[in-house]
Amino acid sequence: MEPIHLLVTFDKNYIPPFRVLAKSLAVNNPAERFHIWLLHSAIPREALEALAAYCGELGMTLTPVAIDPALFAGAPVSKQYPQEMYYRLLSPLLLPEGLDRVLYLDPDILNINPIRPLWELALGDAAFAAASHSGIFELINDVNQLRLGNETDYFNTGVLLMDLSKARSLVRAEDLFRCVREQPELLLLPDQDVFNLLYGKNTLPINDAVWNYDARYYSAYLLKSEGRYQMDYVLKNTVFLHFCGKQKPWKTKSAQRFTILYKHYMRLAELETGARA
Amino acid sequence: MEPIHLLVTFDKNYIPPFRVLAKSLAVNNPAERFHIWLLHSAIPREALEALAAYCGELGMTLTPVAIDPALFAGAPVSKQYPQEMYYRLLSPLLLPEGLDRVLYLDPDILNINPIRPLWELALGDAAFAAASHSGIFELINDVNQLRLGNETDYFNTGVLLMDLSKARSLVRAEDLFRCVREQPELLLLPDQDVFNLLYGKNTLPINDAVWNYDARYYSAYLLKSEGRYQMDYVLKNTVFLHFCGKQKPWKTKSAQRFTILYKHYMRLAELETGARA
Repeated sequence: MEPIHLLVTFDKNYIPPFRVLAKSLAVNNPAERFHIWLLHSAIPREALEALAAYCGELGMTLTPVAIDPALFAGAPVSKQYPQEMYYRLLSPLLLPEGLDRVLYLDPDILNINPIRPLWELALGDAAFAAASHSGIFELINDVNQLRLGNETDYFNTGVLLMDLSKARSLVRAEDLFRCVREQPELLLLPDQDVFNLLYGKNTLPINDAVWNYDARYYSAYLLKSEGRYQMDYVLKNTVFLHFCGKQKPWKTKSAQRFTILYKHYMRLAELETGARA
Repeated sequence: MEPIHLLVTFDKNYIPPFRVLAKSLAVNNPAERFHIWLLHSAIPREALEALAAYCGELGMTLTPVAIDPALFAGAPVSKQYPQEMYYRLLSPLLLPEGLDRVLYLDPDILNINPIRPLWELALGDAAFAAASHSGIFELINDVNQLRLGNETDYFNTGVLLMDLSKARSLVRAEDLFRCVREQPELLLLPDQDVFNLLYGKNTLPINDAVWNYDARYYSAYLLKSEGRYQMDYVLKNTVFLHFCGKQKPWKTKSAQRFTILYKHYMRLAELETGARA
Protein backbone atom coordinates (compact mmCIF):
# COMPACT_ATOMS: atom_id res chain seq x y z
CA MET A 1 0.00 0.00 0.00
CA GLU A 2 1.19 3.53 -0.71
CA PRO A 3 2.14 5.55 2.38
CA ILE A 4 -0.29 7.91 4.05
CA HIS A 5 0.96 11.49 4.01
CA LEU A 6 0.26 13.50 7.12
CA LEU A 7 0.77 17.20 7.67
CA VAL A 8 1.49 18.79 11.04
CA THR A 9 2.60 22.30 11.93
CA PHE A 10 3.67 23.25 15.42
CA ASP A 11 6.39 24.87 17.49
CA LYS A 12 8.68 23.03 19.88
CA ASN A 13 6.20 23.22 22.76
CA TYR A 14 3.97 20.84 20.91
CA ILE A 15 6.58 18.17 20.31
CA PRO A 16 5.49 16.03 23.31
CA PRO A 17 1.79 15.83 22.30
CA PHE A 18 2.82 15.21 18.71
CA ARG A 19 4.86 12.23 19.91
CA VAL A 20 1.72 10.88 21.56
CA LEU A 21 -0.25 11.36 18.35
CA ALA A 22 2.47 9.61 16.33
CA LYS A 23 2.58 6.69 18.76
CA SER A 24 -1.20 6.33 18.60
CA LEU A 25 -1.07 6.33 14.79
CA ALA A 26 1.57 3.59 14.84
CA VAL A 27 -0.39 1.42 17.29
CA ASN A 28 -3.74 1.82 15.58
CA ASN A 29 -2.49 1.37 12.02
CA PRO A 30 0.09 -1.39 12.33
CA ALA A 31 0.07 -2.21 8.62
CA GLU A 32 0.41 1.38 7.35
CA ARG A 33 3.44 3.38 6.35
CA PHE A 34 3.33 7.05 7.28
CA HIS A 35 5.15 9.99 5.81
CA ILE A 36 4.88 13.02 8.08
CA TRP A 37 5.45 16.53 6.80
CA LEU A 38 6.22 19.05 9.51
CA LEU A 39 5.98 22.71 8.51
CA HIS A 40 7.69 24.83 11.12
CA SER A 41 9.55 28.07 11.71
CA ALA A 42 12.40 27.55 14.09
CA ILE A 43 12.47 24.16 15.81
CA PRO A 44 16.15 23.60 16.69
CA ARG A 45 18.06 21.04 14.68
CA GLU A 46 18.74 18.72 17.63
CA ALA A 47 15.04 18.61 18.48
CA LEU A 48 14.20 17.79 14.86
CA GLU A 49 16.81 15.05 14.75
CA ALA A 50 15.48 13.50 17.95
CA LEU A 51 11.96 13.67 16.55
CA ALA A 52 13.01 12.09 13.26
CA ALA A 53 14.72 9.28 15.19
CA TYR A 54 11.57 8.77 17.25
CA CYS A 55 9.42 8.63 14.12
CA GLY A 56 11.92 6.19 12.65
CA GLU A 57 11.50 3.88 15.65
CA LEU A 58 7.78 3.96 14.94
CA GLY A 59 8.42 3.05 11.32
CA MET A 60 7.49 6.52 10.08
CA THR A 61 9.35 9.01 7.91
CA LEU A 62 9.50 12.59 9.12
CA THR A 63 10.30 15.42 6.73
CA PRO A 64 10.67 18.76 8.50
CA VAL A 65 10.23 21.78 6.24
CA ALA A 66 11.49 25.09 7.64
CA ILE A 67 9.48 27.93 6.19
CA ASP A 68 11.33 30.98 4.95
CA PRO A 69 10.01 34.11 6.74
CA ALA A 70 10.59 36.08 3.50
CA LEU A 71 7.45 34.39 2.17
CA PHE A 72 5.47 36.41 4.68
CA ALA A 73 6.95 39.80 3.84
CA GLY A 74 3.61 41.11 2.60
CA ALA A 75 1.47 39.31 5.17
CA PRO A 76 -0.34 40.75 8.16
CA VAL A 77 1.79 39.11 10.85
CA SER A 78 1.65 40.06 14.52
CA LYS A 79 1.71 38.44 17.90
CA GLN A 80 -1.96 37.65 17.51
CA TYR A 81 -1.55 36.43 13.94
CA PRO A 82 1.82 34.70 13.86
CA GLN A 83 3.29 33.53 10.61
CA GLU A 84 2.74 29.93 11.70
CA MET A 85 -1.02 30.25 11.53
CA TYR A 86 -0.80 30.39 7.74
CA TYR A 87 1.14 27.15 7.29
CA ARG A 88 -1.82 24.82 7.28
CA LEU A 89 -3.77 26.94 4.80
CA LEU A 90 -0.75 27.60 2.59
CA SER A 91 0.47 24.01 2.69
CA PRO A 92 -0.78 23.30 -0.85
CA LEU A 93 1.79 25.88 -1.97
CA LEU A 94 4.50 24.79 0.45
CA LEU A 95 4.47 21.01 0.04
CA PRO A 96 6.21 19.28 -2.88
CA GLU A 97 4.26 19.38 -6.11
CA GLY A 98 4.35 15.63 -6.52
CA LEU A 99 2.17 15.24 -3.47
CA ASP A 100 -1.51 14.81 -4.34
CA ARG A 101 -3.16 14.43 -1.01
CA VAL A 102 -2.34 15.12 2.61
CA LEU A 103 -4.17 14.76 5.90
CA TYR A 104 -3.56 17.62 8.31
CA LEU A 105 -3.84 16.79 12.02
CA ASP A 106 -3.68 19.04 15.09
CA PRO A 107 -1.18 17.79 17.64
CA ASP A 108 -3.81 17.63 20.41
CA ILE A 109 -5.41 14.63 18.76
CA LEU A 110 -5.32 10.94 19.67
CA ASN A 111 -5.89 8.29 17.03
CA ILE A 112 -7.80 5.21 18.22
CA ASN A 113 -8.90 3.45 15.02
CA PRO A 114 -7.56 2.96 11.48
CA ILE A 115 -7.39 6.09 9.38
CA ARG A 116 -7.26 4.59 5.89
CA PRO A 117 -11.01 5.08 5.21
CA LEU A 118 -10.51 8.84 5.52
CA TRP A 119 -7.29 8.75 3.52
CA GLU A 120 -9.16 7.04 0.69
CA LEU A 121 -12.31 9.17 0.92
CA ALA A 122 -13.67 10.23 -2.46
CA LEU A 123 -13.82 14.02 -2.36
CA GLY A 124 -15.86 14.54 -5.53
CA ASP A 125 -15.61 18.21 -6.48
CA ALA A 126 -14.45 19.25 -3.04
CA ALA A 127 -10.85 20.19 -2.35
CA PHE A 128 -11.13 19.53 1.38
CA ALA A 129 -12.93 17.34 3.88
CA ALA A 130 -13.53 18.38 7.47
CA ALA A 131 -16.04 17.94 10.27
CA SER A 132 -18.03 20.57 12.01
CA HIS A 133 -18.89 20.24 15.66
CA SER A 134 -22.43 21.30 14.90
CA GLY A 135 -23.68 17.85 15.85
CA ILE A 136 -22.91 18.63 19.44
CA PHE A 137 -23.38 22.39 19.35
CA GLU A 138 -26.06 23.65 17.02
CA LEU A 139 -25.88 26.95 18.80
CA ILE A 140 -22.15 27.47 18.37
CA ASN A 141 -22.37 26.47 14.75
CA ASP A 142 -25.15 29.00 14.17
CA VAL A 143 -23.26 31.74 15.94
CA ASN A 144 -20.17 31.09 13.86
CA GLN A 145 -22.17 30.98 10.64
CA LEU A 146 -23.76 34.30 11.56
CA ARG A 147 -20.50 35.84 12.70
CA LEU A 148 -18.74 34.97 9.47
CA GLY A 149 -21.78 35.41 7.25
CA ASN A 150 -21.24 31.88 5.98
CA GLU A 151 -23.82 29.55 4.54
CA THR A 152 -21.92 26.33 5.09
CA ASP A 153 -21.27 24.56 8.38
CA TYR A 154 -18.52 26.00 10.49
CA PHE A 155 -15.73 23.45 10.10
CA ASN A 156 -13.17 22.52 12.69
CA THR A 157 -9.85 22.35 10.86
CA GLY A 158 -8.08 20.14 13.39
CA VAL A 159 -8.61 17.23 11.03
CA LEU A 160 -8.41 18.41 7.45
CA LEU A 161 -8.07 16.20 4.42
CA MET A 162 -6.70 18.10 1.43
CA ASP A 163 -6.69 17.28 -2.23
CA LEU A 164 -3.53 19.20 -2.99
CA SER A 165 -4.01 19.29 -6.73
CA LYS A 166 -7.39 20.98 -6.35
CA ALA A 167 -6.22 23.12 -3.45
CA ARG A 168 -3.23 24.42 -5.42
CA SER A 169 -5.51 26.03 -7.98
CA LEU A 170 -7.78 27.35 -5.22
CA VAL A 171 -5.49 28.71 -2.54
CA ARG A 172 -3.75 32.05 -3.06
CA ALA A 173 -1.64 33.60 -0.35
CA GLU A 174 -2.96 37.07 -1.24
CA ASP A 175 -6.53 35.96 -0.49
CA LEU A 176 -5.53 34.75 2.94
CA PHE A 177 -3.59 37.89 3.76
CA ARG A 178 -6.38 40.15 2.50
CA CYS A 179 -8.95 38.23 4.51
CA VAL A 180 -6.97 38.74 7.70
CA ARG A 181 -6.22 42.38 6.87
CA GLU A 182 -9.76 43.37 5.99
CA GLN A 183 -11.76 41.90 8.81
CA PRO A 184 -9.53 41.22 11.79
CA GLU A 185 -12.42 41.92 14.17
CA LEU A 186 -14.25 38.91 12.74
CA LEU A 187 -11.55 36.43 13.45
CA LEU A 188 -11.68 34.62 16.77
CA LEU A 189 -9.70 31.59 15.66
CA PRO A 190 -7.87 33.28 12.81
CA ASP A 191 -6.74 30.38 10.65
CA GLN A 192 -9.89 28.35 11.16
CA ASP A 193 -12.09 31.35 10.49
CA VAL A 194 -10.17 32.21 7.34
CA PHE A 195 -10.48 28.65 6.15
CA ASN A 196 -14.22 28.71 6.70
CA LEU A 197 -14.66 32.08 5.03
CA LEU A 198 -12.62 31.25 1.98
CA TYR A 199 -12.94 27.50 1.51
CA GLY A 200 -15.96 26.37 3.52
CA LYS A 201 -17.87 25.99 0.24
CA ASN A 202 -15.11 23.74 -1.16
CA THR A 203 -15.27 21.38 1.80
CA LEU A 204 -16.97 18.02 2.06
CA PRO A 205 -18.55 17.59 5.52
CA ILE A 206 -17.57 14.41 7.38
CA ASN A 207 -19.00 13.01 10.62
CA ASP A 208 -17.30 14.57 13.60
CA ALA A 209 -18.25 11.67 15.90
CA VAL A 210 -15.97 9.51 13.76
CA TRP A 211 -13.34 11.89 12.41
CA ASN A 212 -13.05 14.74 14.87
CA TYR A 213 -14.69 13.78 18.14
CA ASP A 214 -14.52 16.58 20.70
CA ALA A 215 -13.29 14.59 23.69
CA ARG A 216 -14.83 17.01 26.19
CA TYR A 217 -18.39 16.16 25.28
CA TYR A 218 -19.11 12.46 25.64
CA SER A 219 -22.50 13.13 27.22
CA ALA A 220 -23.49 15.66 24.58
CA TYR A 221 -22.64 13.23 21.77
CA LEU A 222 -24.59 10.53 23.55
CA LEU A 223 -27.61 12.80 23.93
CA LYS A 224 -27.58 14.12 20.37
CA SER A 225 -27.27 10.60 18.98
CA GLU A 226 -30.20 9.44 21.13
CA GLY A 227 -27.99 7.00 22.95
CA ARG A 228 -26.23 5.59 19.92
CA TYR A 229 -22.75 6.92 20.64
CA GLN A 230 -22.14 4.82 23.72
CA MET A 231 -18.56 4.26 24.81
CA ASP A 232 -18.52 0.92 22.98
CA TYR A 233 -19.50 2.72 19.79
CA VAL A 234 -16.84 5.37 20.23
CA LEU A 235 -14.09 2.87 20.95
CA LYS A 236 -15.03 0.89 17.87
CA ASN A 237 -15.77 3.70 15.42
CA THR A 238 -14.21 6.98 16.42
CA VAL A 239 -10.90 7.52 14.70
CA PHE A 240 -9.72 10.85 16.07
CA LEU A 241 -10.33 12.03 19.62
CA HIS A 242 -9.70 15.77 19.58
CA PHE A 243 -8.77 17.28 22.94
CA CYS A 244 -10.14 20.73 22.15
CA GLY A 245 -10.16 23.60 24.57
CA LYS A 246 -7.77 24.82 27.17
CA GLN A 247 -7.70 21.87 29.56
CA LYS A 248 -5.24 19.64 27.73
CA PRO A 249 -4.92 16.04 28.93
CA TRP A 250 -1.16 16.39 29.33
CA LYS A 251 -1.67 19.28 31.72
CA THR A 252 -4.36 17.85 33.95
CA LYS A 253 -4.52 15.41 36.82
CA SER A 254 -8.02 14.48 35.78
CA ALA A 255 -8.74 10.80 35.34
CA GLN A 256 -11.92 11.16 33.37
CA ARG A 257 -12.96 9.00 30.44
CA PHE A 258 -10.76 9.72 27.44
CA THR A 259 -8.04 11.33 29.53
CA ILE A 260 -7.11 7.85 30.74
CA LEU A 261 -6.66 6.66 27.19
CA TYR A 262 -4.63 9.74 26.32
CA LYS A 263 -2.40 9.32 29.34
CA HIS A 264 -1.80 5.67 28.55
CA TYR A 265 -0.52 6.73 25.14
CA MET A 266 1.60 9.44 26.79
CA ARG A 267 3.21 6.64 28.74
CA LEU A 268 3.66 4.50 25.63
CA ALA A 269 5.30 7.44 23.85
CA GLU A 270 7.58 8.00 26.82
CA LEU A 271 8.58 4.33 26.85
CA GLU A 272 9.29 4.39 23.13
CA THR A 273 12.39 6.51 23.57
CA GLY A 274 15.35 4.22 23.51
CA ALA A 275 13.14 1.19 23.98
CA ARG A 276 14.30 -0.44 20.78
CA ALA A 277 17.86 -1.63 20.54
CA MET B 1 18.01 -9.56 25.00
CA GLU B 2 16.84 -13.09 25.70
CA PRO B 3 13.14 -13.68 25.16
CA ILE B 4 10.64 -13.51 27.99
CA HIS B 5 8.87 -16.82 28.53
CA LEU B 6 5.21 -16.60 29.42
CA LEU B 7 2.91 -19.37 30.54
CA VAL B 8 -0.82 -19.41 29.96
CA THR B 9 -3.37 -22.18 30.40
CA PHE B 10 -6.92 -21.86 29.19
CA ASP B 11 -9.65 -23.49 27.14
CA LYS B 12 -10.97 -22.19 23.84
CA ASN B 13 -13.45 -19.83 25.50
CA TYR B 14 -10.56 -17.75 26.73
CA ILE B 15 -8.88 -17.31 23.38
CA PRO B 16 -10.41 -13.83 22.75
CA PRO B 17 -9.24 -12.32 26.07
CA PHE B 18 -5.86 -13.97 25.63
CA ARG B 19 -5.56 -12.21 22.26
CA VAL B 20 -6.18 -8.91 24.05
CA LEU B 21 -3.52 -9.74 26.63
CA ALA B 22 -1.05 -10.67 23.89
CA LYS B 23 -1.75 -7.45 21.99
CA SER B 24 -1.24 -5.40 25.15
CA LEU B 25 2.07 -7.17 25.79
CA ALA B 26 3.23 -6.39 22.26
CA VAL B 27 2.25 -2.72 22.48
CA ASN B 28 3.72 -2.13 25.93
CA ASN B 29 6.97 -4.01 25.35
CA PRO B 30 7.93 -3.07 21.80
CA ALA B 31 11.57 -4.09 22.21
CA GLU B 32 10.89 -7.51 23.78
CA ARG B 33 10.65 -10.93 22.24
CA PHE B 34 8.06 -13.22 23.82
CA HIS B 35 7.80 -16.97 23.85
CA ILE B 36 4.38 -18.08 25.01
CA TRP B 37 3.76 -21.56 26.35
CA LEU B 38 0.12 -22.61 26.27
CA LEU B 39 -0.76 -25.67 28.34
CA HIS B 40 -4.16 -26.93 27.28
CA SER B 41 -6.34 -30.01 27.02
CA ALA B 42 -8.29 -29.95 23.84
CA ILE B 43 -8.16 -26.71 21.90
CA PRO B 44 -8.84 -27.70 18.26
CA ARG B 45 -5.94 -27.63 15.84
CA GLU B 46 -7.42 -24.91 13.60
CA ALA B 47 -7.92 -22.62 16.60
CA LEU B 48 -4.33 -23.21 17.68
CA GLU B 49 -3.03 -22.49 14.20
CA ALA B 50 -5.00 -19.25 14.01
CA LEU B 51 -3.69 -18.27 17.43
CA ALA B 52 -0.10 -19.07 16.47
CA ALA B 53 -0.50 -16.94 13.33
CA TYR B 54 -1.89 -14.10 15.43
CA CYS B 55 1.03 -14.33 17.85
CA GLY B 56 3.37 -14.40 14.88
CA GLU B 57 1.88 -11.12 13.60
CA LEU B 58 2.66 -9.66 17.01
CA GLY B 59 6.23 -10.92 16.76
CA MET B 60 5.66 -13.62 19.40
CA THR B 61 6.25 -17.34 19.34
CA LEU B 62 3.45 -19.57 20.59
CA THR B 63 4.13 -23.16 21.66
CA PRO B 64 0.94 -25.04 22.48
CA VAL B 65 1.47 -28.08 24.69
CA ALA B 66 -1.43 -30.54 24.81
CA ILE B 67 -1.43 -32.33 28.14
CA ASP B 68 -1.94 -36.08 28.18
CA PRO B 69 -4.97 -36.97 30.37
CA ALA B 70 -3.11 -40.13 31.42
CA LEU B 71 -0.98 -37.93 33.64
CA PHE B 72 -4.02 -37.36 35.78
CA ALA B 73 -5.03 -40.97 36.22
CA GLY B 74 -4.40 -40.82 39.95
CA ALA B 75 -5.67 -37.31 40.48
CA PRO B 76 -8.88 -36.15 42.08
CA VAL B 77 -10.54 -34.81 38.97
CA SER B 78 -14.19 -33.82 38.79
CA LYS B 79 -16.36 -31.15 37.31
CA GLN B 80 -15.45 -28.90 40.22
CA TYR B 81 -11.77 -29.79 40.02
CA PRO B 82 -11.03 -30.18 36.33
CA GLN B 83 -7.71 -31.51 35.19
CA GLU B 84 -6.87 -28.04 33.79
CA MET B 85 -6.70 -26.52 37.24
CA TYR B 86 -3.47 -28.40 37.87
CA TYR B 87 -1.61 -27.15 34.81
CA ARG B 88 -0.32 -23.95 36.33
CA LEU B 89 0.93 -25.69 39.47
CA LEU B 90 2.38 -28.63 37.61
CA SER B 91 3.97 -26.53 34.89
CA PRO B 92 7.47 -26.97 36.37
CA LEU B 93 7.07 -30.66 35.54
CA LEU B 94 5.33 -30.10 32.20
CA LEU B 95 7.53 -27.44 30.60
CA PRO B 96 10.84 -28.31 28.89
CA GLU B 97 13.72 -28.88 31.29
CA GLY B 98 15.89 -26.29 29.58
CA LEU B 99 13.52 -23.54 30.68
CA ASP B 100 14.67 -21.81 33.87
CA ARG B 101 12.04 -19.21 34.47
CA VAL B 102 8.50 -18.53 33.33
CA LEU B 103 5.90 -15.90 34.09
CA TYR B 104 2.38 -17.27 34.38
CA LEU B 105 -0.46 -14.86 33.49
CA ASP B 106 -4.22 -15.26 33.76
CA PRO B 107 -5.97 -14.42 30.50
CA ASP B 108 -8.19 -11.77 32.16
CA ILE B 109 -5.20 -9.47 32.52
CA LEU B 110 -4.21 -6.37 30.58
CA ASN B 111 -0.59 -5.28 30.42
CA ILE B 112 -0.04 -1.50 30.46
CA ASN B 113 3.67 -1.07 31.25
CA PRO B 114 6.93 -2.94 30.59
CA ILE B 115 7.23 -6.31 32.28
CA ARG B 116 11.01 -6.80 32.18
CA PRO B 117 11.55 -5.62 35.80
CA LEU B 118 9.43 -8.55 37.00
CA TRP B 119 11.05 -10.94 34.57
CA GLU B 120 14.44 -10.00 35.99
CA LEU B 121 13.37 -9.94 39.64
CA ALA B 122 15.89 -11.56 41.99
CA LEU B 123 13.96 -14.28 43.80
CA GLY B 124 16.58 -15.06 46.45
CA ASP B 125 15.61 -18.35 48.09
CA ALA B 126 12.03 -18.18 46.87
CA ALA B 127 10.79 -20.35 44.02
CA PHE B 128 7.88 -18.05 43.20
CA ALA B 129 6.86 -14.41 43.27
CA ALA B 130 3.25 -13.31 43.55
CA ALA B 131 1.15 -10.50 44.96
CA SER B 132 -1.56 -10.71 47.54
CA HIS B 133 -4.53 -8.41 47.39
CA SER B 134 -4.20 -7.78 51.11
CA GLY B 135 -3.30 -4.16 50.42
CA ILE B 136 -6.87 -3.54 49.39
CA PHE B 137 -8.58 -6.16 51.55
CA GLU B 138 -6.98 -6.79 54.90
CA LEU B 139 -10.13 -8.57 55.90
CA ILE B 140 -10.22 -11.00 53.01
CA ASN B 141 -6.55 -11.73 53.44
CA ASP B 142 -7.11 -12.49 57.12
CA VAL B 143 -10.08 -14.69 56.38
CA ASN B 144 -8.11 -16.65 53.82
CA GLN B 145 -5.14 -17.02 56.14
CA LEU B 146 -7.48 -18.30 58.84
CA ARG B 147 -9.39 -20.55 56.49
CA LEU B 148 -6.24 -22.21 55.20
CA GLY B 149 -4.35 -21.98 58.48
CA ASN B 150 -1.56 -20.20 56.66
CA GLU B 151 0.97 -17.85 58.13
CA THR B 152 1.93 -16.14 54.91
CA ASP B 153 -0.14 -13.68 52.89
CA TYR B 154 -2.83 -15.17 50.72
CA PHE B 155 -1.40 -14.83 47.23
CA ASN B 156 -3.34 -14.24 44.06
CA THR B 157 -1.83 -16.57 41.47
CA GLY B 158 -3.06 -14.67 38.42
CA VAL B 159 0.44 -13.28 38.04
CA LEU B 160 2.98 -15.86 39.12
CA LEU B 161 6.69 -15.72 38.44
CA MET B 162 8.30 -19.14 38.70
CA ASP B 163 11.90 -20.15 39.06
CA LEU B 164 11.46 -23.48 37.33
CA SER B 165 14.72 -24.99 38.56
CA LYS B 166 13.74 -24.41 42.18
CA ALA B 167 10.11 -25.30 41.54
CA ARG B 168 11.06 -28.62 39.95
CA SER B 169 12.62 -29.83 43.16
CA LEU B 170 9.68 -28.48 45.18
CA VAL B 171 6.58 -29.41 43.26
CA ARG B 172 5.32 -33.00 43.38
CA ALA B 173 2.09 -33.99 41.69
CA GLU B 174 1.24 -36.34 44.60
CA ASP B 175 1.31 -33.41 47.05
CA LEU B 176 -1.16 -31.46 44.93
CA PHE B 177 -3.48 -34.40 44.51
CA ARG B 178 -3.34 -35.27 48.20
CA CYS B 179 -4.04 -31.68 49.17
CA VAL B 180 -7.17 -31.62 47.04
CA ARG B 181 -8.24 -35.08 48.21
CA GLU B 182 -7.76 -34.46 51.91
CA GLN B 183 -9.41 -31.11 52.41
CA PRO B 184 -11.80 -30.38 49.58
CA GLU B 185 -14.07 -28.44 51.93
CA LEU B 186 -11.27 -25.90 52.42
CA LEU B 187 -10.84 -25.09 48.81
CA LEU B 188 -12.85 -22.17 47.44
CA LEU B 189 -10.52 -21.38 44.57
CA PRO B 190 -8.94 -24.81 44.32
CA ASP B 191 -5.70 -24.16 42.46
CA GLN B 192 -4.98 -20.87 44.17
CA ASP B 193 -5.75 -22.34 47.58
CA VAL B 194 -3.53 -25.34 46.93
CA PHE B 195 -0.74 -23.04 45.82
CA ASN B 196 -1.05 -21.01 49.00
CA LEU B 197 -1.21 -24.06 51.26
CA LEU B 198 1.75 -25.82 49.70
CA TYR B 199 3.99 -23.05 48.36
CA GLY B 200 2.95 -19.83 50.09
CA LYS B 201 6.09 -20.05 52.21
CA ASN B 202 8.25 -20.36 49.08
CA THR B 203 6.83 -17.21 47.56
CA LEU B 204 8.32 -13.74 47.46
CA PRO B 205 5.60 -11.12 47.95
CA ILE B 206 5.45 -8.40 45.29
CA ASN B 207 3.38 -5.20 45.24
CA ASP B 208 -0.08 -5.89 43.87
CA ALA B 209 -0.63 -2.23 42.92
CA VAL B 210 2.17 -2.69 40.41
CA TRP B 211 2.07 -6.35 39.45
CA ASN B 212 -1.48 -7.53 39.99
CA TYR B 213 -3.80 -4.56 40.33
CA ASP B 214 -7.39 -5.60 40.93
CA ALA B 215 -9.09 -3.38 38.36
CA ARG B 216 -12.37 -3.33 40.29
CA TYR B 217 -10.98 -1.34 43.19
CA TYR B 218 -9.46 1.93 42.06
CA SER B 219 -11.00 3.81 44.97
CA ALA B 220 -9.87 1.24 47.52
CA TYR B 221 -6.29 1.37 46.27
CA LEU B 222 -6.43 5.15 46.39
CA LEU B 223 -7.72 5.11 49.93
CA LYS B 224 -5.26 2.53 51.24
CA SER B 225 -2.34 4.39 49.66
CA GLU B 226 -3.51 7.66 51.25
CA GLY B 227 -4.03 9.21 47.85
CA ARG B 228 -0.78 8.05 46.28
CA TYR B 229 -2.23 5.64 43.73
CA GLN B 230 -3.93 8.30 41.63
CA MET B 231 -4.79 7.43 38.06
CA ASP B 232 -1.56 9.10 36.89
CA TYR B 233 0.39 6.80 39.21
CA VAL B 234 -1.42 3.71 37.99
CA LEU B 235 -0.97 4.55 34.32
CA LYS B 236 2.74 5.13 34.88
CA ASN B 237 3.54 2.30 37.28
CA THR B 238 1.00 -0.47 37.20
CA VAL B 239 2.07 -3.27 34.91
CA PHE B 240 -0.82 -5.73 35.10
CA LEU B 241 -4.45 -4.74 35.44
CA HIS B 242 -6.26 -7.86 36.59
CA PHE B 243 -9.97 -7.94 35.79
CA CYS B 244 -10.88 -10.21 38.69
CA GLY B 245 -14.40 -11.24 39.51
CA LYS B 246 -17.40 -12.17 37.46
CA GLN B 247 -18.05 -8.95 35.58
CA LYS B 248 -15.48 -9.31 32.81
CA PRO B 249 -14.80 -6.23 30.67
CA TRP B 250 -15.50 -8.15 27.46
CA LYS B 251 -18.98 -9.01 28.73
CA THR B 252 -20.10 -5.63 29.97
CA LYS B 253 -21.39 -2.42 28.41
CA SER B 254 -19.84 -0.48 31.24
CA ALA B 255 -17.63 2.44 30.29
CA GLN B 256 -15.93 2.84 33.63
CA ARG B 257 -12.26 3.64 34.16
CA PHE B 258 -10.13 0.68 33.20
CA THR B 259 -12.86 -0.91 31.13
CA ILE B 260 -12.26 1.78 28.50
CA LEU B 261 -8.61 0.87 28.32
CA TYR B 262 -9.46 -2.83 28.10
CA LYS B 263 -12.00 -2.25 25.35
CA HIS B 264 -9.56 -0.16 23.36
CA TYR B 265 -7.17 -3.11 23.41
CA MET B 266 -10.04 -5.44 22.44
CA ARG B 267 -10.45 -3.26 19.39
CA LEU B 268 -6.72 -3.26 18.67
CA ALA B 269 -6.68 -7.07 18.92
CA GLU B 270 -9.64 -7.27 16.58
CA LEU B 271 -7.93 -5.01 14.06
CA GLU B 272 -4.75 -7.05 14.23
CA THR B 273 -6.29 -9.96 12.38
CA GLY B 274 -5.28 -9.72 8.79
CA ALA B 275 -4.07 -6.17 9.27
CA ARG B 276 -0.53 -6.92 8.19
CA ALA B 277 0.10 -7.86 4.61
